[in-house]
Amino acid sequence: MATQTIEKNRAFVLRAIKDGAIEERPIPKLRDAWDVRIHIGQTGICGSDVHYWQRGRIGDFILKSSIILGHESAGTVVEVGSAVKNLKIGDRVAIEPGVPCRHCDYCRSSSYNLCPDTVFAATPPHDGTLSKYYIVATDYCVPLPDHMDLEQGAMVEPVAVAVQITKVGKVRANQTIVVFGCGPIGVLCQAVSKSYSAKKVIGVDISKSRLEFAKTFGADGAFLPPAKPADMIKDEFKLEEGPDVVIEATGAESCIQTGINLAKKGGMYVQAGMGKENVTIPITTACIRDLTIRGSIRYTTGCYPTAVDLVASGKIEVKRFITDRFKFEEVEQAFELVRQGKESMIKVIIKGVQ
Amino acid sequence: MATQTIEKNRAFVLRAIKDGAIEERPIPKLRDAWDVRIHIGQTGICGSDVHYWQRGRIGDFILKSSIILGHESAGTVVEVGSAVKNLKIGDRVAIEPGVPCRHCDYCRSSSYNLCPDTVFAATPPHDGTLSKYYIVATDYCVPLPDHMDLEQGAMVEPVAVAVQITKVGKVRANQTIVVFGCGPIGVLCQAVSKSYSAKKVIGVDISKSRLEFAKTFGADGAFLPPAKPADMIKDEFKLEEGPDVVIEATGAESCIQTGINLAKKGGMYVQAGMGKENVTIPITTACIRDLTIRGSIRYTTGCYPTAVDLVASGKIEVKRFITDRFKFEEVEQAFELVRQGKESMIKVIIKGVQ
Amino acid sequence: MATQTIEKNRAFVLRAIKDGAIEERPIPKLRDAWDVRIHIGQTGICGSDVHYWQRGRIGDFILKSSIILGHESAGTVVEVGSAVKNLKIGDRVAIEPGVPCRHCDYCRSSSYNLCPDTVFAATPPHDGTLSKYYIVATDYCVPLPDHMDLEQGAMVEPVAVAVQITKVGKVRANQTIVVFGCGPIGVLCQAVSKSYSAKKVIGVDISKSRLEFAKTFGADGAFLPPAKPADMIKDEFKLEEGPDVVIEATGAESCIQTGINLAKKGGMYVQAGMGKENVTIPITTACIRDLTIRGSIRYTTGCYPTAVDLVASGKIEVKRFITDRFKFEEVEQAFELVRQGKESMIKVIIKGVQ
Amino acid sequence: MATQTIEKNRAFVLRAIKDGAIEERPIPKLRDAWDVRIHIGQTGICGSDVHYWQRGRIGDFILKSSIILGHESAGTVVEVGSAVKNLKIGDRVAIEPGVPCRHCDYCRSSSYNLCPDTVFAATPPHDGTLSKYYIVATDYCVPLPDHMDLEQGAMVEPVAVAVQITKVGKVRANQTIVVFGCGPIGVLCQAVSKSYSAKKVIGVDISKSRLEFAKTFGADGAFLPPAKPADMIKDEFKLEEGPDVVIEATGAESCIQTGINLAKKGGMYVQAGMGKENVTIPITTACIRDLTIRGSIRYTTGCYPTAVDLVASGKIEVKRFITDRFKFEEVEQAFELVRQGKESMIKVIIKGVQ
Repeated sequence: MATQTIEKNRAFVLRAIKDGAIEERPIPKLRDAWDVRIHIGQTGICGSDVHYWQRGRIGDFILKSSIILGHESAGTVVEVGSAVKNLKIGDRVAIEPGVPCRHCDYCRSSSYNLCPDTVFAATPPHDGTLSKYYIVATDYCVPLPDHMDLEQGAMVEPVAVAVQITKVGKVRANQTIVVFGCGPIGVLCQAVSKSYSAKKVIGVDISKSRLEFAKTFGADGAFLPPAKPADMIKDEFKLEEGPDVVIEATGAESCIQTGINLAKKGGMYVQAGMGKENVTIPITTACIRDLTIRGSIRYTTGCYPTAVDLVASGKIEVKRFITDRFKFEEVEQAFELVRQGKESMIKVIIKGVQ
Repeated sequence: MATQTIEKNRAFVLRAIKDGAIEERPIPKLRDAWDVRIHIGQTGICGSDVHYWQRGRIGDFILKSSIILGHESAGTVVEVGSAVKNLKIGDRVAIEPGVPCRHCDYCRSSSYNLCPDTVFAATPPHDGTLSKYYIVATDYCVPLPDHMDLEQGAMVEPVAVAVQITKVGKVRANQTIVVFGCGPIGVLCQAVSKSYSAKKVIGVDISKSRLEFAKTFGADGAFLPPAKPADMIKDEFKLEEGPDVVIEATGAESCIQTGINLAKKGGMYVQAGMGKENVTIPITTACIRDLTIRGSIRYTTGCYPTAVDLVASGKIEVKRFITDRFKFEEVEQAFELVRQGKESMIKVIIKGVQ
Repeated sequence: MATQTIEKNRAFVLRAIKDGAIEERPIPKLRDAWDVRIHIGQTGICGSDVHYWQRGRIGDFILKSSIILGHESAGTVVEVGSAVKNLKIGDRVAIEPGVPCRHCDYCRSSSYNLCPDTVFAATPPHDGTLSKYYIVATDYCVPLPDHMDLEQGAMVEPVAVAVQITKVGKVRANQTIVVFGCGPIGVLCQAVSKSYSAKKVIGVDISKSRLEFAKTFGADGAFLPPAKPADMIKDEFKLEEGPDVVIEATGAESCIQTGINLAKKGGMYVQAGMGKENVTIPITTACIRDLTIRGSIRYTTGCYPTAVDLVASGKIEVKRFITDRFKFEEVEQAFELVRQGKESMIKVIIKGVQ
Repeated sequence: MATQTIEKNRAFVLRAIKDGAIEERPIPKLRDAWDVRIHIGQTGICGSDVHYWQRGRIGDFILKSSIILGHESAGTVVEVGSAVKNLKIGDRVAIEPGVPCRHCDYCRSSSYNLCPDTVFAATPPHDGTLSKYYIVATDYCVPLPDHMDLEQGAMVEPVAVAVQITKVGKVRANQTIVVFGCGPIGVLCQAVSKSYSAKKVIGVDISKSRLEFAKTFGADGAFLPPAKPADMIKDEFKLEEGPDVVIEATGAESCIQTGINLAKKGGMYVQAGMGKENVTIPITTACIRDLTIRGSIRYTTGCYPTAVDLVASGKIEVKRFITDRFKFEEVEQAFELVRQGKESMIKVIIKGVQ
């Protein structure tokens, strides 16, 4: 029929390094009975999207053929597979962007963030969510309550990253937490920690404006190196024994070293930011002090639903992160803005194709 | 009475760097109602004893006045305080050599290995166990069953170190474990892992004779770098995903790097050996692979009783570690032998004062 | 001097069943270098105090000679032992009322709530806190911030009980929690759960007014049996799979049975209330559903400091629990009021001796 | 072709209560790309198979149309789906008999034993393994090493049940374990506990011959009620504090009560046997003693591979359990033998269709 022939899947496609363009793609089909098709409503832009756009690779993931970009999205269900029970057409959902194989030992051990066969949006060779429609497994969609809009739904992704980091770090009530970095992930880690009743949360950043922003989100204290030397953190905040948990969300070697030296004996250090491949760390200190050093990557079971509830309950006001909004047709402008990385820009969001 | 006036506490005293001597000290007194006095029967020599003897310090612990050396001991109870319920005169015990303050947050959280006020034998300024008598809290003594002798009792200390390392590493049945280093601690980690039904335990060492020794204790495989390059470990032992647990018991930077790169995604890496203060590690790999990097130091609740039972049940034949035995009067010769560190020497043990 | 001879330790003494009286006792002395003496400022009355007053026993604890009652107290430090580092004269503290032996396996495993030799206030044969002065170990005192008064400090005890119950129940963000009982402990469990970002907390009680009170403290829903049959809880609150955690704070057999049947597969059931010695439970359901049934008793490391912070941060408004205040001289009236147990009475508090 | 038309899937079919018969069924087809087809070599008979045969139901699982019986099997891979990587034709495997949906929260949380949509062999309406061929997902097959035969492979199932029970019970080195019941599951729990270096394992049974059998498998002690009253267990085995873990594998109310009363404070009680729906338990004791009461059902990730390794390494000699062997054509005789439940019969095994 006429209608069918013209309906397409408009998408922002990365064809090669620095060569992104809006294309009309065929509407994607459900892969199995558990899949749903989502009409994408809002999509946030992440540093990794821009990284692929500018460099064509992150680690072992290399752009070999064109992919659709984007992975922080929310939208509306428009088609459901025959096995789908928890969703129906018209439901509004946040999309967890990586669907694992479900058959490997990692998947069977609830460590699906480590599954090597995950279909992760906008990670070569898999298409992302910056398109009219996106296919995803129904259990990787979390329904949004009526009072949450799709902008908030798109912001669930970075909140879920912070939920995983604090889960890895076993953040809990009455703890002291130091977070290196006050970008979106750092501030969200601070906000999630406060929502779990952490006693004292301290943000560290070299940008005064980011520290000010952090303080409005729950950080009890802000620390600005190198204006103040890093070894003053303990004195400044009266942390006799050091923080219970250090979350390192910058990847900078100096922060990593300061962070490990800072952590309380028996404490927890979580590496959440990525920078140089290899860094020098005070290993004897880590050993004698019985520290636990953990990596955090993506999300595991429960992170997305928890993130939705933290937003829905008003505990984390994600709208305040959104500094810039673009129409779908302006997607390249949006990417350019993120690339420039001005201090006034926190989170850029793109409206979906109508 | 005459007898009392002459009875003394013969001890091996470190008076200054490289200046050890046997002295007659006064018999030590119980400090409180929970203390017992032990007639020391056998004492193993540890690298740290020799380190203090040769250099006078380890980290922040600095020899400022003379101390008695020795901390790996077993003996017989000769006096009990009024609150002692679990021991009586004549009981034979292994001595856990560090008694913590019992009042700090670490002590109250069962992390007494981190207590800053621990009275640890032969750690300045505290006297050690190389004396006729030693005073220790009753709950830091573990009774030996009748069929275990005091040599085995003295060997409980390094077994307890290995029990703590495997506890930190959460070693359990059906796991694959790679242990860097086949000295006493490394081999004991391998033996403890096997006693917990680990599936495959692989020892790594640059000494062929130590690898041979390891294989007689439970190691399923032995690997000899640089004869074989470290990146062959996976292939050699068909570890597609890498080991579940890596225990690093050498402190060598190359082993640390190899170990972190080797561990399975989501796996565990335990730093048990100490070498350089700072080392370069592949932090991005650790982060992306969701590794847990842990330090291990001393022992915690349950390690000593577990170690006694592993020896008592015959699961770990500690006598086979003892290569050299000395009388108390020959203590300095014994120290000299350990200092030389010949490959044929594994564990040196000193008989107590009669 | 004259002054000294008249200063006494005025105390509310239970001399025999139903025979309580204010007596002048000698001022108690520090037992060791870690003790402090507290001038008691405020004391809450607990059901167990009244139980001893009326019946002279709880379980194996039997009144054989007179004891001072009271164990929910806060006060001011007036004397410190020589080893005390964390407190000084004039500090205001909440008192954790049970000091364990520090030497048994329970104490060494951070399960000091199970220590058989605990000196617990107002548990025969130990004196309680309803006196001018009380002696306690310094590490069982938690300093109060300046903006917290001693009434809030006395209320820390029931908050700490709720912190332990939620710790045992592993309550965390995004969970659904059903609490049977909306007395002080039940409501505090609900409030603590909300402060940890539980998603949905439901209070169950047969008193409408207690349910109303619960709803002002964080309960998202209230359920009133037998007006509504217990098996309607799931439908009423759309809990398809049942709650993640059930906290039973009544001890009533029907609640225990309903609670176990209600819990989600793989879920957690915590027995916090005490009633009959033996009850009939659906054991096959518990087994097939892989439930964890836990008891909760007293508090463990960290509960008291966490409770102080939850009150200090304003997350739990404990003042709203206090319905009745008495002078020390009116203590017997206060006990009588608690004994009557009117619905309008929630928490009764007694001012200390000046 | 001629060959295809005659090859059939000979199977032991339960057509109605007490009406089992060998039938020729069509050869089953792979359901998806991850499936494999197994030529069944050996199958053990379990009490639940006989229960369906005699009564047609277990709990909510009711026989409504005919099913093939059997679920404890090992065999040889004869066909692999296109996504299968870990197996190839000719591999010999133990079959984990329940394949879950992989999409529900339980599956995603590594609690797939709780998945309501599990396809479990011989649980209505799903066919079991007592047939020539069986279809199962490749990741629910564990390869057998060359030295393990298919009889041992079939015995992996009850070993995996015991591995799960000891996992739930957190059994570890140096613990004391009391196991009620010395049938196959009870004895296997004892053997698994010993293989993890439990210190003292005590079997309890009313059959002297079963106790004797248990003692040859690792039980350090055997206890025979009512010849000896249950409250003598502590004295007999000098368990001052009670066992660390109680495993109840009978389902008998008296054992359940004795077991809960016996467990150490802070200890673990695992309900593994099933009897009456409701039983009376000492709930106040459980609460005051801070016990953990757990159910155990089926197996979770890692149990099957661990069970294979425990058998392969010789730690658990499963052949000694097999008292009776039958040809496939004698399957009904085999069922009858199990139904009679004579004391001399421990495990009955049926050879597969050639």
